[in-house]
Amino acid sequence: MTPPSAAAIAALKSALGDGGWTDDPAGIAPWLTEWRNRWNGHTPLMLTPRSTEQVAGAVRICAEHRVSIVPQGGDTGLVGGQIPFGEVLLSTRKLRAVRDVTPLDDAMTVEAGVTLLEAQQAAAAADRLFPLSLAAEGSATIGGVISTNAGGTAVIRYGVMRDLVLGIEAVLPDGEVFRGLKRLRKDNTGYDLKQLLIGAEGTLGVVTAATLKLFPVMRSRATAMVGLESPRAAIELLARAKAETGGGVEAFELMKRIGMAFVLANIPDTREPLESAPPWYVLIELVSGEPGAADTAMEQLLSHAFEAGLITDAAIAQNDAQRAAFWKVREEQSAAQKPEGGGWKHDVSVPVSRIADFLDDATAAVGRFHPGARVSAFGHVGDGNIHYDVLCPTGGDHPAFIARWAEGSQIVHDIVARYDGSISAEHGLGRLKTEEARRYKSPAEIRSMQAIRAALDPHRIMNPAVLF
Amino acid sequence: MTPPSAAAIAALKSALGDGGWTDDPAGIAPWLTEWRNRWNGHTPLMLTPRSTEQVAGAVRICAEHRVSIVPQGGDTGLVGGQIPFGEVLLSTRKLRAVRDVTPLDDAMTVEAGVTLLEAQQAAAAADRLFPLSLAAEGSATIGGVISTNAGGTAVIRYGVMRDLVLGIEAVLPDGEVFRGLKRLRKDNTGYDLKQLLIGAEGTLGVVTAATLKLFPVMRSRATAMVGLESPRAAIELLARAKAETGGGVEAFELMKRIGMAFVLANIPDTREPLESAPPWYVLIELVSGEPGAADTAMEQLLSHAFEAGLITDAAIAQNDAQRAAFWKVREEQSAAQKPEGGGWKHDVSVPVSRIADFLDDATAAVGRFHPGARVSAFGHVGDGNIHYDVLCPTGGDHPAFIARWAEGSQIVHDIVARYDGSISAEHGLGRLKTEEARRYKSPAEIRSMQAIRAALDPHRIMNPAVLF
Repeated sequence: MTPPSAAAIAALKSALGDGGWTDDPAGIAPWLTEWRNRWNGHTPLMLTPRSTEQVAGAVRICAEHRVSIVPQGGDTGLVGGQIPFGEVLLSTRKLRAVRDVTPLDDAMTVEAGVTLLEAQQAAAAADRLFPLSLAAEGSATIGGVISTNAGGTAVIRYGVMRDLVLGIEAVLPDGEVFRGLKRLRKDNTGYDLKQLLIGAEGTLGVVTAATLKLFPVMRSRATAMVGLESPRAAIELLARAKAETGGGVEAFELMKRIGMAFVLANIPDTREPLESAPPWYVLIELVSGEPGAADTAMEQLLSHAFEAGLITDAAIAQNDAQRAAFWKVREEQSAAQKPEGGGWKHDVSVPVSRIADFLDDATAAVGRFHPGARVSAFGHVGDGNIHYDVLCPTGGDHPAFIARWAEGSQIVHDIVARYDGSISAEHGLGRLKTEEARRYKSPAEIRSMQAIRAALDPHRIMNPAVLF
Repeated sequence: MTPPSAAAIAALKSALGDGGWTDDPAGIAPWLTEWRNRWNGHTPLMLTPRSTEQVAGAVRICAEHRVSIVPQGGDTGLVGGQIPFGEVLLSTRKLRAVRDVTPLDDAMTVEAGVTLLEAQQAAAAADRLFPLSLAAEGSATIGGVISTNAGGTAVIRYGVMRDLVLGIEAVLPDGEVFRGLKRLRKDNTGYDLKQLLIGAEGTLGVVTAATLKLFPVMRSRATAMVGLESPRAAIELLARAKAETGGGVEAFELMKRIGMAFVLANIPDTREPLESAPPWYVLIELVSGEPGAADTAMEQLLSHAFEAGLITDAAIAQNDAQRAAFWKVREEQSAAQKPEGGGWKHDVSVPVSRIADFLDDATAAVGRFHPGARVSAFGHVGDGNIHYDVLCPTGGDHPAFIARWAEGSQIVHDIVARYDGSISAEHGLGRLKTEEARRYKSPAEIRSMQAIRAALDPHRIMNPAVLF
């Protein structure tokens, strides 16, 4: 990468003004790495614009001077898409306004730097729900969540971020502002350009604001942890839960015995949720618009599931503390692996009906490739998204194990592809997976993406190392 | 438009083989017009391929010979997007297979020529719901419904077609097949190309098959007709209905006294649904996963709405015949205008919170422009979509009135634009509205669309007269 010219740097500093940029290495350092410590980037300049117009001004200068840009939100991405390696870093975290909340439209417009948690709170203050929820929600920003089309735990009921965006304002690669902040549910007047920006990982422009869909606050919620013999039983239970509740399943999270053991061993203040310590767990959350109805529905579902032999144990949360305890053992699944030495991570999805087959095949193949490797699979089985993590055998040679990551991942991903799955369900491709993804995309698909990108960003200044 | 060369025609006939094409004017004629009789096209050749490979072969020949193509589904479009004027007509109606239904994935894959009604039936046979529903569902095909991103009556709960498509198979403008029939809820591996094809009105390729989302069959449903003093009351009632039912509102359709009068006068076998003959009506449909729960919820909602003074009259359907009678007076709103002489039609949307203001402003402006003009507004107020139709004054000069359509529409559409609305909520732009839409789109937006189109279809052979 050619470093930006002194003239370009000077023009950017002048356009953003005092407080709108820094080239102080200490000030930039926290934004050049992320929590898994897989990436450690560098940049000559970090921009922190405070308005859409400032973003547009900066991008226009970059376009004129052919300066590459990496846009960044809350820096919670896991695939390196937000880390510059020589590009100018354009952080949207100072675009902080909640522009409006209109409950009659079930809509609100927030700027890109508002965190996901703050967006949820703004909705709640208007007696509405913004349903997207994920572990990093206190830091992840709306701009980043849109650019990576994030998912999270409530996808089964409310969809991914793409399903929750009504409108987008963005600065295009030539510095023009796309003003698409519509609050409409129906608008068929040409290509839906916002759909291209969602999930584009900052390669087609910089999202500066978005109008988001809101939902009614649900009047009852029931949470249970159940024990099962197998993922097959979980899939059958899921179908039954969806049918019985008419779409009232908000979360359906699968966990495996080994993952639960890691949590209990490595995370303080956790306890075994089911005395029987079953081989598989599912955390189920049901909601209803009717007060009390979710509890009744949960009792019925579990009673039918026991009768049908689908579950072997169950506990319904009796209060918020128990509900929080159930969620904690789910949310700490990833962090609990760290003391075990980390491992090969996979964020994959397959059709729900193929989850059990996938787990069987992948685990057998991993066992053949690296005998003794420990597989901790967990995730949003309600939408087919499995975090399939492979850990070093107990007492094994950890550096040697990590050295086989790429090869091991290819085995897992080839099986995912065989089941018509995705090698990146919710984290995106970023710097980590773009090259690997070429293996699983058709030439027609990659060519189309490249043609669209070249049409909108002819000098490829937007996040050039990410995507095709 | 340059007519296709004899060599191109011969190559197409040879590729499609017997039964795969016709140039017999009588055989083609039914597909050159549509039910409003606004368009009467012509074509040298109609292709009716029976497989994706045949579609690909035909498009490849057209690309080589620079022959323009108009793709057509069930020919139910209302804006002329499916009518050729010299282009080759490529009908997808013989792509008839339901390829698979996988209830555990809540998904099914159907070919483009399957009708919407047949798709609903295939889902029902697997004890699932495919929720998109509209008046033309017996003829409208899945390919056309995708290409126009159709809406219909259940959008408030299930979204538009875009929200219901998991995967797409399409032939791109160079004849390559995009194989994107995924059954995944989460897949973040580059731009979501299918989103570009949805609503592209056949300008970026020919949709040949799609994987659609299915939903649980709801166990109870309650339908009511209520009377109200104003659209403002309807909007408040809608907010209350959504909050009380936690998202259980499946339809919320506004009608006006004058539209009801047209139906009662002009459509056989209809009767006044409310004795009080109120100025405004809303048809409400609630659903629930719990048997009986929708009825209880409807009773509660209406009782609260009476207490709050939001409604003046109400009738709950006691059986399927009454339910059908309520829906009939809604669905015949458009047809009932024909004996009144037709009029200026507008398929617009505005944010739900602005519907009442829009109706006030537009009706005042139309009254100033053409005194005595009769406004029949009705539609899916639950998603902001109003069919705003203006009819000739009683006893007025009808040809003179129709001659003012374009001018009158611009008045209505300018008010729509002022409320951040859309001049085509669910019908698309087609040949009818593309030029007018330029007035309401920003140059950046039109330029982006043109760049994307040129990148994917450099010779502009796909539906060249439609969109930008």
